[in-house]
Amino acid sequence: MKPNDILKLVENSHAYRLLNHGPTTLITSAHNGKRNIMAAAWACALDFDPPKVTVVIDKNTYTRTLMEAEGTFAINLPCVAQMDMVKQVGSCSGRDMVSDKFAQFNIQTFAAQQISAPLVEGCVAWLECKIIPEPHNQNTYDLFIAEVIAAHADERVFSNGRWHFEGYDDLRTIHHVAGGAFFAIGESVQAI
Amino acid sequence: MKPNDILKLVENSHAYRLLNHGPTTLITSAHNGKRNIMAAAWACALDFDPPKVTVVIDKNTYTRTLMEAEGTFAINLPCVAQMDMVKQVGSCSGRDMVSDKFAQFNIQTFAAQQISAPLVEGCVAWLECKIIPEPHNQNTYDLFIAEVIAAHADERVFSNGRWHFEGYDDLRTIHHVAGGAFFAIGESVQAI
Repeated sequence: MKPNDILKLVENSHAYRLLNHGPTTLITSAHNGKRNIMAAAWACALDFDPPKVTVVIDKNTYTRTLMEAEGTFAINLPCVAQMDMVKQVGSCSGRDMVSDKFAQFNIQTFAAQQISAPLVEGCVAWLECKIIPEPHNQNTYDLFIAEVIAAHADERVFSNGRWHFEGYDDLRTIHHVAGGAFFAIGESVQAI
Repeated sequence: MKPNDILKLVENSHAYRLLNHGPTTLITSAHNGKRNIMAAAWACALDFDPPKVTVVIDKNTYTRTLMEAEGTFAINLPCVAQMDMVKQVGSCSGRDMVSDKFAQFNIQTFAAQQISAPLVEGCVAWLECKIIPEPHNQNTYDLFIAEVIAAHADERVFSNGRWHFEGYDDLRTIHHVAGGAFFAIGESVQAI
């Protein structure tokens, strides 16, 4: 489906719940007419409201170059249907491509609200992020801290602050272990 | 089963794979004869080898007091069978208890190899962590960086660097959303 049909704004106080269960992410970035996409499993909530996140981005990546130059990036949450693409974009660098990874792998995008980074169609949630500069963390640990300035989700699987994947197995978030081996998120269980 | 029957050392280069799929954790700590346990969903891998992690621990927690005083803590990975206990220890503070949360909720533990923090029986993996002092992160963001100095897993569900939960549904890791609502980790899927 096209984003307009399923996209719903996620309120600030619920944004952390998009990451709380530990999904693997796609990081998108854009600067000065260039754009890139990479896979990142090391993204985590850091604060509730205003929502903040941490994400680990290696110094050698083209994503790092673009996001540091622009000061913003997007966290996209891919799903089971996109697993092969996630492995593909996680296994090559966009730095030396004639076009870019989006063209190379036929990845459709739509515009973010607040930032330049493209959002990936077919993902199930999107967090638009603004870097809070922390040079020591960035240089020593490849660790970025960012504020989430807008968040959206596919309302078929996330609404009113809760995920509900029943009936949408292809839209379940994916959780990388290593080498393209993922888990799909599983059954809902409720503690008493 | 008792830890001795199932406990297997995880090599350094595989330690990140314990956290890579985003499980909710239990943080244990001990200092000067006191000990505590809390739930934390915001724990994340930070580096491969030597393995490092980030974890967010609120200033108001008793765990924070103990781990800052001792300089070490443990990350335990609870499973479906322990879901109610995870909610319980995440819903109260150990600061003012006559005994402690372990006694209060009848939580059995065993000794770590390198640190004072107790490890929780019935969990499926354990990471013994030494804090890398970063006062700015700790004070500004409640964010701790630590090196994993020993890691262990229940070999029934993790061996040779891979999780394998088939046949052990009660041992699946749990992934918190909010309010005691968790997902169990689901099916293995492999990207091509």
